[in-house]
Amino acid sequence: MTATAAQTVPAAVATEPLQTVLRELPVPDIGPDEGLLRVEVAGVCGTDFQIYCRRSRGAHLGPLILGHENIGTVAAVGEAAAARWGVRVGDRVAVEEFIPCGVCRLCRSGHYRICAATDSRGGQPFLRYGSTPVDRAPGLWGGFSRLLYLHPNAVVYRLPDGLDADLAALFVPLANGIRWVVHEAGGTVGQSIVIQGPGQHGLGCVVAAKEAGMGPIIVSGLAADAQRLAVATRLGADHVVEADRSDLVARVTELPGGEGADVVVDTTPGATAPVTAAVAMAAKRGVVILAGSKHGQPIGDFPHDMVVRKEVMLRGVRGHDHRSVEPALAILTAGRYPLELMTTHRFGLDEVDRALRMVGERTDPDAIHVNVCPAASLHEDVVPA
Amino acid sequence: MTATAAQTVPAAVATEPLQTVLRELPVPDIGPDEGLLRVEVAGVCGTDFQIYCRRSRGAHLGPLILGHENIGTVAAVGEAAAARWGVRVGDRVAVEEFIPCGVCRLCRSGHYRICAATDSRGGQPFLRYGSTPVDRAPGLWGGFSRLLYLHPNAVVYRLPDGLDADLAALFVPLANGIRWVVHEAGGTVGQSIVIQGPGQHGLGCVVAAKEAGMGPIIVSGLAADAQRLAVATRLGADHVVEADRSDLVARVTELPGGEGADVVVDTTPGATAPVTAAVAMAAKRGVVILAGSKHGQPIGDFPHDMVVRKEVMLRGVRGHDHRSVEPALAILTAGRYPLELMTTHRFGLDEVDRALRMVGERTDPDAIHVNVCPAASLHEDVVPA
Amino acid sequence: MTATAAQTVPAAVATEPLQTVLRELPVPDIGPDEGLLRVEVAGVCGTDFQIYCRRSRGAHLGPLILGHENIGTVAAVGEAAAARWGVRVGDRVAVEEFIPCGVCRLCRSGHYRICAATDSRGGQPFLRYGSTPVDRAPGLWGGFSRLLYLHPNAVVYRLPDGLDADLAALFVPLANGIRWVVHEAGGTVGQSIVIQGPGQHGLGCVVAAKEAGMGPIIVSGLAADAQRLAVATRLGADHVVEADRSDLVARVTELPGGEGADVVVDTTPGATAPVTAAVAMAAKRGVVILAGSKHGQPIGDFPHDMVVRKEVMLRGVRGHDHRSVEPALAILTAGRYPLELMTTHRFGLDEVDRALRMVGERTDPDAIHVNVCPAASLHEDVVPA
Amino acid sequence: MTATAAQTVPAAVATEPLQTVLRELPVPDIGPDEGLLRVEVAGVCGTDFQIYCRRSRGAHLGPLILGHENIGTVAAVGEAAAARWGVRVGDRVAVEEFIPCGVCRLCRSGHYRICAATDSRGGQPFLRYGSTPVDRAPGLWGGFSRLLYLHPNAVVYRLPDGLDADLAALFVPLANGIRWVVHEAGGTVGQSIVIQGPGQHGLGCVVAAKEAGMGPIIVSGLAADAQRLAVATRLGADHVVEADRSDLVARVTELPGGEGADVVVDTTPGATAPVTAAVAMAAKRGVVILAGSKHGQPIGDFPHDMVVRKEVMLRGVRGHDHRSVEPALAILTAGRYPLELMTTHRFGLDEVDRALRMVGERTDPDAIHVNVCPAASLHEDVVPA
Repeated sequence: MTATAAQTVPAAVATEPLQTVLRELPVPDIGPDEGLLRVEVAGVCGTDFQIYCRRSRGAHLGPLILGHENIGTVAAVGEAAAARWGVRVGDRVAVEEFIPCGVCRLCRSGHYRICAATDSRGGQPFLRYGSTPVDRAPGLWGGFSRLLYLHPNAVVYRLPDGLDADLAALFVPLANGIRWVVHEAGGTVGQSIVIQGPGQHGLGCVVAAKEAGMGPIIVSGLAADAQRLAVATRLGADHVVEADRSDLVARVTELPGGEGADVVVDTTPGATAPVTAAVAMAAKRGVVILAGSKHGQPIGDFPHDMVVRKEVMLRGVRGHDHRSVEPALAILTAGRYPLELMTTHRFGLDEVDRALRMVGERTDPDAIHVNVCPAASLHEDVVPA
Repeated sequence: MTATAAQTVPAAVATEPLQTVLRELPVPDIGPDEGLLRVEVAGVCGTDFQIYCRRSRGAHLGPLILGHENIGTVAAVGEAAAARWGVRVGDRVAVEEFIPCGVCRLCRSGHYRICAATDSRGGQPFLRYGSTPVDRAPGLWGGFSRLLYLHPNAVVYRLPDGLDADLAALFVPLANGIRWVVHEAGGTVGQSIVIQGPGQHGLGCVVAAKEAGMGPIIVSGLAADAQRLAVATRLGADHVVEADRSDLVARVTELPGGEGADVVVDTTPGATAPVTAAVAMAAKRGVVILAGSKHGQPIGDFPHDMVVRKEVMLRGVRGHDHRSVEPALAILTAGRYPLELMTTHRFGLDEVDRALRMVGERTDPDAIHVNVCPAASLHEDVVPA
Repeated sequence: MTATAAQTVPAAVATEPLQTVLRELPVPDIGPDEGLLRVEVAGVCGTDFQIYCRRSRGAHLGPLILGHENIGTVAAVGEAAAARWGVRVGDRVAVEEFIPCGVCRLCRSGHYRICAATDSRGGQPFLRYGSTPVDRAPGLWGGFSRLLYLHPNAVVYRLPDGLDADLAALFVPLANGIRWVVHEAGGTVGQSIVIQGPGQHGLGCVVAAKEAGMGPIIVSGLAADAQRLAVATRLGADHVVEADRSDLVARVTELPGGEGADVVVDTTPGATAPVTAAVAMAAKRGVVILAGSKHGQPIGDFPHDMVVRKEVMLRGVRGHDHRSVEPALAILTAGRYPLELMTTHRFGLDEVDRALRMVGERTDPDAIHVNVCPAASLHEDVVPA
Repeated sequence: MTATAAQTVPAAVATEPLQTVLRELPVPDIGPDEGLLRVEVAGVCGTDFQIYCRRSRGAHLGPLILGHENIGTVAAVGEAAAARWGVRVGDRVAVEEFIPCGVCRLCRSGHYRICAATDSRGGQPFLRYGSTPVDRAPGLWGGFSRLLYLHPNAVVYRLPDGLDADLAALFVPLANGIRWVVHEAGGTVGQSIVIQGPGQHGLGCVVAAKEAGMGPIIVSGLAADAQRLAVATRLGADHVVEADRSDLVARVTELPGGEGADVVVDTTPGATAPVTAAVAMAAKRGVVILAGSKHGQPIGDFPHDMVVRKEVMLRGVRGHDHRSVEPALAILTAGRYPLELMTTHRFGLDEVDRALRMVGERTDPDAIHVNVCPAASLHEDVVPA
């Protein structure tokens, strides 16, 4: 159950802006409350790229292993941890990025994803997969590595037999979609929704909206997003709009009813105009979900009086939780949606930089969900027996 | 039960920007579904001043009688209307400003206050007390008049015996406070709240928060608001802050707990900085209520990523409803709060311009709730027998 | 626009227990606020049979025309009513059974379906389609008639072009299912549900649960319900259980997770054991919807301490509302479910007794939704021009 | 920081029905994740008496130390536990009875109080203060002891300086009242409430209702409860009713409005008639909170159809949580209510049987909150240094 300290595993360590270096890191000993994950697939997310650029929370962090959408098999697990997580060595699991304290007010209210112990705030140390420096023992805090350390407070889900690892890695965007669209916006049968941005999170929202019986489902993107918008249609979108070629707000308010959308979700990164458009498209008493990072930019023309006049509700959201991951895994298992269309690229550990640039710089505009597969290449496996 | 058409009543008609003219308007015949109110007190609100200046929705409207916080006695009422409203001639009543259609989706969902039939939208005609032109028959659509027409769809409350008319006129700010703080923000026992702006609406929020068991209750104003802040303290505020002399955000985040406020309400008119400050003061998962009009100005530095990072909820709100007016009237009747401190000025029909300027231009900074009392002066009463 | 008083229309008048008599009733004059519906389809519901037997609310009522699930075309409509309902002569519409006052606390809070004006209470008069005596002018208060009077407070929906009238008549069970399962129980993506009773309401709940992304969906009935359970499967049920041959509670608690159902809906009429079973099947914090009438019988062994121990929520529910009828009509129009399987029988006005007994006495156990089609037989049409 | 194993402390061990025996139990060594509480006050609750009688969950348990409303000072605490709980040796704290797992679906959703790890279910072992046998190491699982073991998963609150220990021991009934009345029933400004049973939980509900701005507040008891009802009045009840001398249902429905109560809470132990009365007193859409144990008896005449007709919601509830304990402690500290009237009796460890019988058999009908104060008598203190 415990590892030999002399062993090492390879990991892609982000050392300075826009660079990772393959390093051998020691395999830690595992106590009764801990475990190790043999990473099969680590999805790449826009947040990884922000940290990779050393922007936002990344600016304060030392060298670290990125990767927080982690799927793998249990390589080692202590007795107490095995009981707590309901897993054995060899089981395939998904691991949330959060490592919450478990006892604060937020944890005790179901909001462990924003517990201060697992959340960046002005340079103070915190624990979170893909955001914790390698100099914090035992170092293996990210999925772009052969092994991931499973902290006692990790949130671990045993996966159903037969669920493909690449598909499983979509649990993050899908659980996010469910929490944002269903749990936070209250999206339900018969409500209309506009989803701005057809990236992995926007597409997760499409599936969530479809599952929840919402309609019409309108997805907006840019002309460069043609392939992503085609996938949106395959997943259940009723209308797709290239917002740089067509007046999205007009399209939405021209729909039957003509009163605007019940729910608008903005998942676009960096752009501020979609927030203003979201308020313009929302119906009276409509809900606007703010889910995209604007990289610190303020919204320069926030239409306050329109928010008041229509009694719009805006809600900032981040990440998922137990309540949304469980149905996400059930949907991924059930196979009712062609979700495999979302996984467009797979890279080994030696191509982590290429994977990150593909997501952050859109070197391939058709890329949607890009996976790092650390076991797929390089060295022999050195997982403790 | 019906009036003699030859009779007239005096009313202050807002004819052009910043001007009202006393006119005699005919007393209408009343059908079985209608009524007439002998206005005792019509409170003056900042919205009246906006229309008086011909800004905002006022820009599109012809000559009209302002005044939408109306208390009076039933001067005439048709049989069907008497049954519907549960009133008789001589009963003292409060009348909401809304004249909703009663059958649209919003009306059928409890949101009649924003029903399109009673809501300004880009110059289209609508019915609403204090906002409907005199050329729309029967003309008596505002409280700055000896008589107010009671439309079949008016929302009328019979007042408890013994409730003073000036006190009763506070039902609007108090019901607004209850709806915004309690029903929309979900403010409840033990939650902290910051209320920005100590005008009539801010003070209504103080009472609502106190009733709901919230605390600490922090009220911010300017140095010029010293008297209003003193009233806030008398009504139950735990802390008052002159935000132009003291760092409000720091004060709030220094409070025990140090995590920001559960609820922040912005009632300030015209200023945009309080919205940004509200987001900064809100706790994780906190609620920001946007209740002040910014006279069409956008917020120039809306801190989007902070909204996302803290999962803040923002909600635009307007007005009150049945669920909030009823407890407001009960609180006004119970006498547990020194609410009479809020009524600072009373004017006759011939001083409507002075009353409006006092509210809109703050000619007396200590003014809080300013009342027009149409029956208090001028002509003899000509109400139909 | 107005009718000639001399004209009459045939209607099936329920005169004494278990008997209807065909009578010619005068066609009323229609004022500006009213209308007349040429009934195409009037669905038969278990409540109709209760009144037909003169049980429950029926005991207090005089002769009346039953039928409260009404679909038809507008035969006449006053000017104000046409504007309010957004309809013209010839439009096909659905009419809710409720005739609410529009101004009480319940109406103003979105609960018009239980407004006292439209709700039976101890023999006091009320207005409701299918429950109002013919001696209340103008008499035509039920759908088992060539014409139905449209009261000013009727709740009327213009139907989409091309929606079949028999299919449209399913709007009641489907809207009920949406309100009970989605709006009241909060059923949503990934939640499990048990639906007791595969009649029209149980099947409406199946569709609502499916639309809302719930699963597994388990439907229970008796061995005699084999055909209905087969339809449940066609509509999306994951499991069906003949509860008289199989231990339903054990089946539910044996499901993966093993913690009971998130939502249980009891739609069974008359039987009390399903209520006790519902509590036994509910998960901790589960919701039990009580939707079946027990014809006045108390539950003799209500498991109070189990409700407490599991913190179960029980909610009594009745009928639908605007928020549920709208998505019901959208689902009926979209054609994603083989809902036509639910309409099993159609009868003319001269066979109303047979239709009622089929529903109330289950003379054909395979019957699900039984329609009376008043225009399908008998006399010539006498609708006012 | 660790104790000498040779030391012992006295505890009242419940060995067989209706009997406790004073025993010396060894003081355990404390690891980094654990602590020891020097118990100052352990409140006695009706549940203690049920276990003491070996009824309900008590039937399955071996010898144990009762007492789950625990206030004391930290006698020893490991380093990790001190950081987690924010406490040091000597701090006064309150400890919830729950020892939840922290990782199950209920824990992750804010419902840790009903986590299976801390909840009785058919004889399976679980951890909970006052319900865990002494043969489960380290034995000190109840408050009727000089020392209480603080498990790593204990829910611990540092108390404000100056809060009296007897007063602090009211945190359980007060937090229960807040959760049941405010969080579960949604009780808020202007709503009416009937509270059945003026024991410690009923009185906790009175304070919660008063804080939340509810009114009128009606409390029912028996003639023998005269003293408790007098305390209810002192705490803010508007009306008290001796339900064995007066028709409670009639009194409630005669109140202004006449439509029944918005919220009814049944806290009565053992009696089933109050549940039926609660449904009868509830308004349409009213909420009935089921909070009293009926010792396994079913309700024999549960008025199902009245629940349906009025769309009543019933909710079983148990215990408190973080969200309710925090405001309870704030209310206890603020001193706005004469809560000291609730603490009627204090007993030493040698009188635990008398204390339990006073609560369970009402040997003194005026008793309300009865405290065991283990430090107040007997041996010298042997707490580890």
